[in-house]
Amino acid sequence: MPVVNIQMFDGRDEAKPAIAKAVTDAIAQHGNIDPQYVYVIFNDVAMENWAISGEIFAETLKKS
Amino acid sequence: MPVVNIQMFDGRDEAKPAIAKAVTDAIAQHGNIDPQYVYVIFNDVAMENWAISGEIFAETLKKS
Amino acid sequence: MPVVNIQMFDGRDEAKPAIAKAVTDAIAQHGNIDPQYVYVIFNDVAMENWAISGEIFAETLKKS
Amino acid sequence: MPVVNIQMFDGRDEAKPAIAKAVTDAIAQHGNIDPQYVYVIFNDVAMENWAISGEIFAETLKKS
Amino acid sequence: MPVVNIQMFDGRDEAKPAIAKAVTDAIAQHGNIDPQYVYVIFNDVAMENWAISGEIFAETLKKS
Amino acid sequence: MPVVNIQMFDGRDEAKPAIAKAVTDAIAQHGNIDPQYVYVIFNDVAMENWAISGEIFAETLKKS
Repeated sequence: MPVVNIQMFDGRDEAKPAIAKAVTDAIAQHGNIDPQYVYVIFNDVAMENWAISGEIFAETLKKS
Repeated sequence: MPVVNIQMFDGRDEAKPAIAKAVTDAIAQHGNIDPQYVYVIFNDVAMENWAISGEIFAETLKKS
Repeated sequence: MPVVNIQMFDGRDEAKPAIAKAVTDAIAQHGNIDPQYVYVIFNDVAMENWAISGEIFAETLKKS
Repeated sequence: MPVVNIQMFDGRDEAKPAIAKAVTDAIAQHGNIDPQYVYVIFNDVAMENWAISGEIFAETLKKS
Repeated sequence: MPVVNIQMFDGRDEAKPAIAKAVTDAIAQHGNIDPQYVYVIFNDVAMENWAISGEIFAETLKKS
Repeated sequence: MPVVNIQMFDGRDEAKPAIAKAVTDAIAQHGNIDPQYVYVIFNDVAMENWAISGEIFAETLKKS
């Protein structure tokens, strides 16, 4: 039943299997839920599509 | 007014027109809503970005 | 696998079973997907929390 | 703290910096919130993935 | 066409009309979009349901 | 930067602090991300608002 959507910057594909496993285990253990019903979905977002403090993060990075 | 987001594996473009029509009709009919206000949005997700039971589905498929 | 989120005005509980069934059938049939993996989630929204054309819909209704 | 997801047709990248700034300012000013905690995320959607009135918008455009 | 979901702490109802207006105007002006198609949806979240840095914010507040 | 939305049945408030901590730690560790930027948001859903296999889960439970 739980559906987990994770929005994060793209470019971290190699981290996804471990994140998915740990998130599912945490929900299954603490929420007392059968892991087979847990969906973890990664919604990658480009830095050009994410703003923090009103500025597109790709622009912020260029100044740092 | 209703906004419907459908997250499903990518690669099913040919099914989308029929799904959009049927979903809109169901909401219009049963919810007594004017279909012109119904938005149906497909958010495609790669199998590498979807985990079930703590495992990335693309990996699960490789073992089946 | 498909996860369907339906955001609509609250107050339509009686329509939800029929909408959920029709949406699941449409996705199963046209998307060739086993319905047991289809999640349909209703996210009710009060008219005070939904704006169209820049105006909160509850306010729009008061003027109509 | 506020997270703003904006789903709109793709192809408007040049408008995003101004939209992100204006949305953040509006929330900071009217909501009395420190802008550094405001996330604005653009989720682009292709016209082939958005249906209005039960029809995929890319199809609707072809007829107009 | 644009759908804007704003997740923020509950308790700011009085700010919503002004936020909705400003967000719609920003998208209409900078995105060259007819405001009648812009949906702005507020998804209120209790502080007990929002974690930052791994801690539920309601708990963080108790310590401050 | 990561925003995690967790949709699950309501009634599990006591599990949320531990889930939020574990999810944040997993993303910080495996994604090499500063936890202070990780938002974890719980979107509770009543069983009357969640359908699996085309049936509202509250109804399914009544039959089990």
